[in-house]
Amino acid sequence: MSLWDTLGLAGRKVLLLHHDDLGFTLSTNLAYERLGFPSGSIMMTGSWAPHIRNGDLGVHLTLTSEMDYPRMRSITARKSLLDSEGYLWRTLQEAWTHIDAQDAEAELRAQIDVFYARRLQPTHIDTHMGAVLRPDIADIYHRLALEYQLPCLLPETAGDIPLPPEMRASYQSLLDTTPLPKMRLIDSYDAPIEDRTEWYEEVLRSQLPGVYHLRHHAALPSDETEMLPDAAKRIGDYAALQSERVRRAISEFTIVTFREIGDAWRQTVPP
Amino acid sequence: MSLWDTLGLAGRKVLLLHHDDLGFTLSTNLAYERLGFPSGSIMMTGSWAPHIRNGDLGVHLTLTSEMDYPRMRSITARKSLLDSEGYLWRTLQEAWTHIDAQDAEAELRAQIDVFYARRLQPTHIDTHMGAVLRPDIADIYHRLALEYQLPCLLPETAGDIPLPPEMRASYQSLLDTTPLPKMRLIDSYDAPIEDRTEWYEEVLRSQLPGVYHLRHHAALPSDETEMLPDAAKRIGDYAALQSERVRRAISEFTIVTFREIGDAWRQTVPP
Repeated sequence: MSLWDTLGLAGRKVLLLHHDDLGFTLSTNLAYERLGFPSGSIMMTGSWAPHIRNGDLGVHLTLTSEMDYPRMRSITARKSLLDSEGYLWRTLQEAWTHIDAQDAEAELRAQIDVFYARRLQPTHIDTHMGAVLRPDIADIYHRLALEYQLPCLLPETAGDIPLPPEMRASYQSLLDTTPLPKMRLIDSYDAPIEDRTEWYEEVLRSQLPGVYHLRHHAALPSDETEMLPDAAKRIGDYAALQSERVRRAISEFTIVTFREIGDAWRQTVPP
Repeated sequence: MSLWDTLGLAGRKVLLLHHDDLGFTLSTNLAYERLGFPSGSIMMTGSWAPHIRNGDLGVHLTLTSEMDYPRMRSITARKSLLDSEGYLWRTLQEAWTHIDAQDAEAELRAQIDVFYARRLQPTHIDTHMGAVLRPDIADIYHRLALEYQLPCLLPETAGDIPLPPEMRASYQSLLDTTPLPKMRLIDSYDAPIEDRTEWYEEVLRSQLPGVYHLRHHAALPSDETEMLPDAAKRIGDYAALQSERVRRAISEFTIVTFREIGDAWRQTVPP
């Protein structure tokens, strides 16, 4: 019996509506509160991480700080993780070139541990910009998910995510053998800015039955959001997800949380 | 000839109008831009530090992260600097109880070095919440100022700042023997919220000739500022410093910058 059968979800249209980058700015957190959808993941390196406490919340594992500001520091300050100003690397290329696997493991572990130190139980882990997908770090990410018994974001196939060609085979093999739950990934990030509401509506309406992880980056319009180079995407996600049209399309799905998925999955793990 | 003579400031009413906590929130940075006063210091542990680049800017040395949010991590992640969630200590009491002097020195040095790593020259150093004033750390702070040849915020007498009684004598002795410039300190932080404009006006008008360092914490009104427990003080500083009445009182002073003070002071230092 599959995990989705156990949850009574097999054959249905199921949505995990996931808010990325919580804790990065206050405007992201406020969008999460106002949207009222349960799931999201917190950047423990973000200065507003402590502001978010209630929900189906995981750890948004972060090895990059890609914008001019706000910028983020690591938890461990291990040398290979940091640029000359002591921030996490700006680009995936820099991160993948410089980061030592041992330092990555220490940092990812620390990001999970400081979440637990808040006396809250994370419901899952996922990854900012896919920075954990360098094959040796992907193995660590997957091993930590098993060790902490937390679901992690895993797409059904490696083709669901942008990944350099040379990394695809090993990632597909991880996906083929993982005992962890996988979902179809829907990512709004590169959806058109102008017609974002239509995009959401069409994408949601066109899905066949299945379990979908929909990632978004909603943020309230504010001075803080306007400073981000991708402000229009974030404000666009917020507007679309607040719209009646998208809410109606969402209402055709059963909403699932990582808490439900994790609880059911842990039942399947031999003690 | 005193430093103030060299600068042509002796016998005049001189003001260094200093914006504390730059880099902590965007609303603090925007208040700095809109007020248009030159001097301030940047928390290199604040996520908006990279947003501020132009001005008479120093390093706001930070060993505490006192609010619920935003919270700040260190540059070095040395253990004695951090609470169980990996943030800088919340209170002076915790910081002074736990911080190892060697860790403090490494962290303060790192905060100055990451400022230089931006390819900017800081004009001074000062201290957040006076956390560097534990006597052994005060010695490090003073030694770093001499080593980097940067003026640091030093009041004329230990009585100008709140300090536990047992720390006063050693601090006064540091002040009595320092070759670095000292100023009279005016701190608006505990000024009445209701009548802050009047308070500024009266305090400024009542000063005799001398060199005054006026610290303020102005921030624009915003969601971000409203989340801070001392929002009213920060918004009050902004409103007062934008008011015609306070601007008139300020216009009776000669404005001095740390850049001018540092340039003149370095001339007096034997090579």
